[in-house]
Amino acid sequence: MKITPRPSSPPLRSPEQRRGDPGKASAWQQWLADEASTREEAGLTRRLRERPADDPTTDLAGNDYLGLARDSAVRRAAADAALEWGSGASASRLVTGTFALHAELEQELADYLGQPSALVFSTGYHANLAIVSALADRTTRVISDAHIHASLVDAVRLSRAQLTVVPHSDVEAVRAGLVSAAEAGERAMVLAESVYSVLGDAAPLVELAALCEEYAALLVADEAHGVGVHGPGLVAELGLAGLPHVVVSATLSKALGSQGGAILGPVALREHLVNRARPFIFDTGLAPASTAGALAALREIRRRPELGATVRARVAALADALGVVAPAGAVLSVPMSSPQAAVAAQAAALEAGLRVGCFRPPSVPDGISRLRITVTAGVPADDWARAVETLVALVKEHQ
Amino acid sequence: MKITPRPSSPPLRSPEQRRGDPGKASAWQQWLADEASTREEAGLTRRLRERPADDPTTDLAGNDYLGLARDSAVRRAAADAALEWGSGASASRLVTGTFALHAELEQELADYLGQPSALVFSTGYHANLAIVSALADRTTRVISDAHIHASLVDAVRLSRAQLTVVPHSDVEAVRAGLVSAAEAGERAMVLAESVYSVLGDAAPLVELAALCEEYAALLVADEAHGVGVHGPGLVAELGLAGLPHVVVSATLSKALGSQGGAILGPVALREHLVNRARPFIFDTGLAPASTAGALAALREIRRRPELGATVRARVAALADALGVVAPAGAVLSVPMSSPQAAVAAQAAALEAGLRVGCFRPPSVPDGISRLRITVTAGVPADDWARAVETLVALVKEHQ
Repeated sequence: MKITPRPSSPPLRSPEQRRGDPGKASAWQQWLADEASTREEAGLTRRLRERPADDPTTDLAGNDYLGLARDSAVRRAAADAALEWGSGASASRLVTGTFALHAELEQELADYLGQPSALVFSTGYHANLAIVSALADRTTRVISDAHIHASLVDAVRLSRAQLTVVPHSDVEAVRAGLVSAAEAGERAMVLAESVYSVLGDAAPLVELAALCEEYAALLVADEAHGVGVHGPGLVAELGLAGLPHVVVSATLSKALGSQGGAILGPVALREHLVNRARPFIFDTGLAPASTAGALAALREIRRRPELGATVRARVAALADALGVVAPAGAVLSVPMSSPQAAVAAQAAALEAGLRVGCFRPPSVPDGISRLRITVTAGVPADDWARAVETLVALVKEHQ
Repeated sequence: MKITPRPSSPPLRSPEQRRGDPGKASAWQQWLADEASTREEAGLTRRLRERPADDPTTDLAGNDYLGLARDSAVRRAAADAALEWGSGASASRLVTGTFALHAELEQELADYLGQPSALVFSTGYHANLAIVSALADRTTRVISDAHIHASLVDAVRLSRAQLTVVPHSDVEAVRAGLVSAAEAGERAMVLAESVYSVLGDAAPLVELAALCEEYAALLVADEAHGVGVHGPGLVAELGLAGLPHVVVSATLSKALGSQGGAILGPVALREHLVNRARPFIFDTGLAPASTAGALAALREIRRRPELGATVRARVAALADALGVVAPAGAVLSVPMSSPQAAVAAQAAALEAGLRVGCFRPPSVPDGISRLRITVTAGVPADDWARAVETLVALVKEHQ
């Protein structure tokens, strides 16, 4: 069928005519311009910076905690899957987009994390949208830690659940929320990250799991920064894996070096997500290369437990050398005296071949500017030793 | 830092103890069980079915309209990118997750679709969440076609915009919504798909664009089913590409055979999304293999315009042979006399080596069960002729 404008169409000027039109900007164009000016004046404009394939710098700003995104076995597995299965899954998982490869990854993820089942999504953001929006509605109470990831914040909004935000890692505030939900007869869900990205601290998962059991609530623990750095994650390490009221969200794009996310928990939960989670149902299945890359990375993690041990040892040593508290995860925050000092230290690091992050107001909760350094097992020992030396020197110089 | 339970932790039973616990199910377990029973009784339980790599059946249910997901050049490009760049992007696009490869894809997509700029997302669902939620808020009026994709429905919910759903392709209802928004002083956004997935019909894009210009509103046209089948898409074909008030959402997982999505439009819009779209900012960049796969598919589409022509000719001929109206896209809906007839025809097709879809109540708007057949240029001409013969015979037999 050829598509042509209907005869009743009003006449349209051509794009060329309009692009050259000096007339009034539409409400949207004006709004975009105003928003841009506001950002620019506040010094908050963010721009994308491309990296070349042969980037000679060392990435200490990303989330490739174990160096597996560029591991040769992982790259080879991803490439082989693209050749064998194709570039995309070509359909929703529920139609013809579930490959044996997806099932294999789900089985091995569940095995490693000590969970009855896993369901893979095409991003970690999708996984978080799915777990909250498929289980919670207006009648549900969601009790969310104040430092929760943006994807979980958006998930709660999408679900239209009743939301109680509690102060960071405040167990008594969670209890109060659960008591209130129980009194109102609401099903309750508690959201936490096993390791928080903001400050790098660990959640009081044992206490939260006990509270959720006491109040018949569900704990959703986002292990984005826990899996890999702490082997199968903190939920497993703390003996909470497999409890029917503790659900894990994991990402395939950090320690697993790929793309995607997963929800792990009871089989009944997985079946519910398959049937009801819109971010699963109305999305194309995860691409074969990403699926196989994550699976290969998972096997590397199981085969080489020293990867997690290395990153934990490097975090501890670097934190000690910089005089900051060691985080539970792989990301170190180093307070700096001023935004200018942080920016100068970041520039000096790049000059020395190290890409580190830099947080300035207003994107820090307490007004303190920080360098943000990702520790990774992916850098060879000699290079890592040199990087530490460089970082310690330049932090001292600029702090 | 080693994570151990805090001394104050209440005692916990082990997962083994609890799994063996015959005691009362929690509110959540009971709720999941009830939901599953309701689905089962209604015959609506959906299950995932794995496909092996050497699946001998022909997939006429997915969205690989041009056969590019399994094209040898596309697979090779995806594999090479995994080897060269790694299995994942390892960071948000705003941190260190933007590769030259992403920029290359964005430039070529914008060129082909006739747009000033493009921004790539890790799924089409992300792209739709981003365009609506980064532009609309409680003060905005979103006027949405009744047949819009689930990701756009979720996007509006996430944005908290004022929503007006209009009857399908009802231009006068859109005008009434725009008049009402103008009177209320609200910025307005109109959501349409260039080709709708439900019925396969095309949107009245020329009229909608004219209305949006008249009322200073923004038209978002989702080209998920338009790009590739109609070359650069219907927005471009109708001369609407490059208009500042017409924004295109595209997917990389259908005709482009890969994974991901894109928003195309004015440069100012792209900059706004980079700075404000949470599904962009808080997500890992699209994996190298998917990025390169989409780029290679785009180049194949430009190099071989006969791909789109082939699928359009096949759609027209098959629709004619089956006695149904030819859709604007690549997906044919064939009304069947009963849900049982639809299921029997689907089973017979599979028996003959053809995977087709089947829609039954309640997932059809009018209660009519349908076979859903995806036409693809990816099947060789002889095989396609045989498939047509088989489909015509079995539809006649079961209809």
